[in-house]
Order: sequence, then structure tokens, then C-alpha cells
Amino acid sequence: MPPVHEARLRVRYAETDQMGVVYYANYYVWMEVGRVELCKACGFNYRDMEREDGILLVVCESHCRHKHPARFDDEVIVKSWIAEANTRLVQFAYEMRLADGGTILATGSTRHLFVSREMRPVRLPSKYHQMFGLAAAKS
Amino acid sequence: MPPVHEARLRVRYAETDQMGVVYYANYYVWMEVGRVELCKACGFNYRDMEREDGILLVVCESHCRHKHPARFDDEVIVKSWIAEANTRLVQFAYEMRLADGGTILATGSTRHLFVSREMRPVRLPSKYHQMFGLAAAKS
Amino acid sequence: MPPVHEARLRVRYAETDQMGVVYYANYYVWMEVGRVELCKACGFNYRDMEREDGILLVVCESHCRHKHPARFDDEVIVKSWIAEANTRLVQFAYEMRLADGGTILATGSTRHLFVSREMRPVRLPSKYHQMFGLAAAKS
Amino acid sequence: MPPVHEARLRVRYAETDQMGVVYYANYYVWMEVGRVELCKACGFNYRDMEREDGILLVVCESHCRHKHPARFDDEVIVKSWIAEANTRLVQFAYEMRLADGGTILATGSTRHLFVSREMRPVRLPSKYHQMFGLAAAKS
Repeated sequence: MPPVHEARLRVRYAETDQMGVVYYANYYVWMEVGRVELCKACGFNYRDMEREDGILLVVCESHCRHKHPARFDDEVIVKSWIAEANTRLVQFAYEMRLADGGTILATGSTRHLFVSREMRPVRLPSKYHQMFGLAAAKS
Repeated sequence: MPPVHEARLRVRYAETDQMGVVYYANYYVWMEVGRVELCKACGFNYRDMEREDGILLVVCESHCRHKHPARFDDEVIVKSWIAEANTRLVQFAYEMRLADGGTILATGSTRHLFVSREMRPVRLPSKYHQMFGLAAAKS
Repeated sequence: MPPVHEARLRVRYAETDQMGVVYYANYYVWMEVGRVELCKACGFNYRDMEREDGILLVVCESHCRHKHPARFDDEVIVKSWIAEANTRLVQFAYEMRLADGGTILATGSTRHLFVSREMRPVRLPSKYHQMFGLAAAKS
Repeated sequence: MPPVHEARLRVRYAETDQMGVVYYANYYVWMEVGRVELCKACGFNYRDMEREDGILLVVCESHCRHKHPARFDDEVIVKSWIAEANTRLVQFAYEMRLADGGTILATGSTRHLFVSREMRPVRLPSKYHQMFGLAAAKS
């Protein structure tokens, strides 16, 4: 898995609230955009893992420091990387900043458990280990 | 099915946009709240039909006239009723107004097809006919 | 204004629902993405018109035919154009289809009134006429 | 301010994702529902403070432990209380559980700064001190 991926998105009108800035919960949606692209950048497809292996990544913890408000039509860069991973869980970290000027909007993290369709914890199959930066040898 | 059901909800901050009013797509979420409660009011549970019979109600058309803007913390009454139904589809109609004063916010409608989990059209099982106001006799 | 603009977006996990497809209200968010880009493509900036002229485009009607379900991670092309415009209102039309294969997902339209910050109808200032395809001469 | 407030809400279809459970960002929307009701329960109205005093509560940090998935149509109780407050900021804490059975779904917290419309930090006016549990005497 590449150390860091940068996704780009444009703030939607729907994402603003009456304060004139982006509603705070939407930063978590942007983190999702970032981690989906990060996973894809290393040949690992979220959608396929769900469909083919029946393995889901369920969020067990999420956190965000909201430092500077984003506004409608701002272009945002979502930097995502894996902060920690083992065969049971993975933690992603994020930094979101304005494409124009580089002001940091927010930093955050999400922890995910690997689970089956029935929401029971499972171990990550070894074929995915390398993608999550896990040693291939002994799982 | 009762002719009309009234659901109540309170406008969330998350539902406003930078214009200071409710973002237009959220009226469609409120229609969902209305029709779910309408269905339940006649002993028909959306969730159960999905789980037990594998029948989904998939939206094939939606429409809204946005007449007056709703604002944060307004209490809204969503009036819902069945405008048309047969064994293939059902059309719900809606009127949304302010609880305080009665100003009409919006009117709308949604058309839904009965489909299987594989998204193929199916006929509504006869046990549900009465709930949708369909003649029990000949299906 | 160019006759037609095509915006591209990728379906977010947040936009799906438990049916495994995109929740119907989100097509209206995509229409917003389409019309914002259409406006920008002709040198007209939504954000600036709000800030500098205090003119808002408030939705008074919206409609969508949902033809084929979009799924997580699908790339979607939103084709947008102006179907009708005068100094009081503008109607946009949309066609959304899969980038891969071209299946039409949905078609729709939105009607908007030009209003002031106080939500009172106003006439579109003449400097914007050309952008909306209105004859420059007599307003 | 009362020590604790309990808000109730019903999970919307719109809030689920293709995993069949509530999308994680929506827990933050529910926290908003909880704190708005908590504030109101002590005679303090969010909407009025924004309108009359031009004071906004802007989120600077948010956190959630997602313990158990909520599903469509579940009734959820959002327990909210003030964990910390001074004239510059307030921290709310939350516990979300199923009304039926009491399973804890999530716990969380949000920190908010008092800011002006221009997003500059301000001190909370003394008339609001009591509501946030601040000593009335010396501000």
C-alpha cells in the first residue's frame, strides 16, 4: 500500500449548513472518499472485497479535529494513510486541506474492524495482507 | 390502509444549507418518513416485508413542489396517502406544512415498483393487498 | 452558456442505502453538482452571485425519473442544460448515466426562482442575461 | 441546565448504507439532535442565540465510539449532557442506545467554540452562563 494518497473533491451546496460552512458530519464522508481511493490506489477494491469475500470494514471509532471551516465550492484535498493495521482491524488517518493555499481544514482518524456479513469479527484473509502493509509470512 | 397519515418531525441543523433554509433534497427524506409511518399505521411493516418476503419498494419517480422554505427547528407535519396502487406499483402523495400556523411548505409524490432483492419487478403478494387498498378478490 | 455540460462523480458509500443502491434523494444532490458545474463552465459563479449580488437561486420544483439503480463506486456522468429561462426563473434539465457502458440512471429537472436574501422574487440583473441565454437587448 | 436530556428518534431509511446498518457519519447528526433538545430543555434556544445575539456554536472536535450497529426503523435514545463548559467553549457528551432493550449503540462527544458570525471566538454573554452551568458571579 502506498504510504499516502491524496483525493480531491469539491464542496457541495448540500454539504453546507445555515452557518454558511460545511456541516461537521460531512468531514466523515470525505474521510470515506479518501480511504476508498487509498485502498483502490494499491489495487485493493472495497466493493470487490465486500462482494467476493463477504468481508466488510465496519467503523468502530471515529474522530475529527475541525480546525478551519470549509465553504461551498472550495476544492479540498483529502490525504489518507494507514496509521495502524493488523489482521483484526485497521486505522486510517486523514488530513484535509484547501487545494488553494493549503490551509488545513481538519485532521481525523477512523478505526475499522474486519467483519463478516453477519457483523462478526473475522481475520483478514492473507491475500489482502500485503495491501494493508502486513507481513506476508506469519499471520 | 387509513386514508391519510400525519407524521411529525423537527428540522435538523444538518438539513439546512447556507441559504439558511432546508436543502431541497431533504424534502424527499421527509416523504420517506411519512410513507414509512403511513405503512406502519395500517399494520404493514416496511422492514418486515424486506426481511420476510424479500420484496422491496424501489422508487421509479419522484416529484416535489417547493412552496415555502422550512427553517431549522421548525416542526413539520408530513401528510401522506396512497394516490394509486395496483399489484405492480404504488404511488404515494404528500403534503408538508408547518405545525405552527399551517403554512404549506411543499407537496410531492413518489412512485414505487415492487421488486425482488435482485431488482426484478414482482407482483405484490395477496396478503398485502388489503393494506394497499387493493380488492382482495381477484389479483 | 454552453448548450450542455457533463460533470463526473463517483458514488459514495454514504449515498447508498440498505437496498444496496443509491438512495433516491441523492440524485437531487447530483443534479446540484451538475448545474453548479454548468454555470461555472460559462463563467458564471454561483458563489459570487450569492456573495456579490445577493441573488439566490431557490428551487421551486424538482422531478426525477429513477430508471436504473446506481451502486457504490460507480462513475456517473451528469449531463446538465438549461431547458428554459427568463428574468424570473430558470429550469435546468439533467440526464445521469453510467460512465461505463452508458446506461441511463435517471433523468430530471429543477425549476429555480431568482430571489433576494430575504427570499423575495427579483429579476435577474442584465449582466447575467447572456449567461442564461437571454437576449441582451430588452429586459 | 438539567444534568441529562434524552431525545428519541427513529432510524430513517436514508440513514442506512449498503451494509444494512446506519452509516457512521449519521451518529454525529443524532448528537446534534440530542444537544439541540438538551439546550431547549433548559430554556435556551440555539436558533434564538444565533438570530438575536449572533453567536454560533462551531464544532472544533468530535469523536464517536461505534459499538453496535443501528438498523432501519430502530428507535434510538440519545442521552446528552454537558461534560465541560467555560466562557470560551462547551463540550457535550452523548450516549446512544436502542429504546428496545437498551443496547448501547455508540458513545461520543463534541467540543464547540462560541464564535461570532465572522467565525471569530467570542466569550459567552453572561445571560447565558447559568444555562451552561457557569457560575453567575464573576465572568
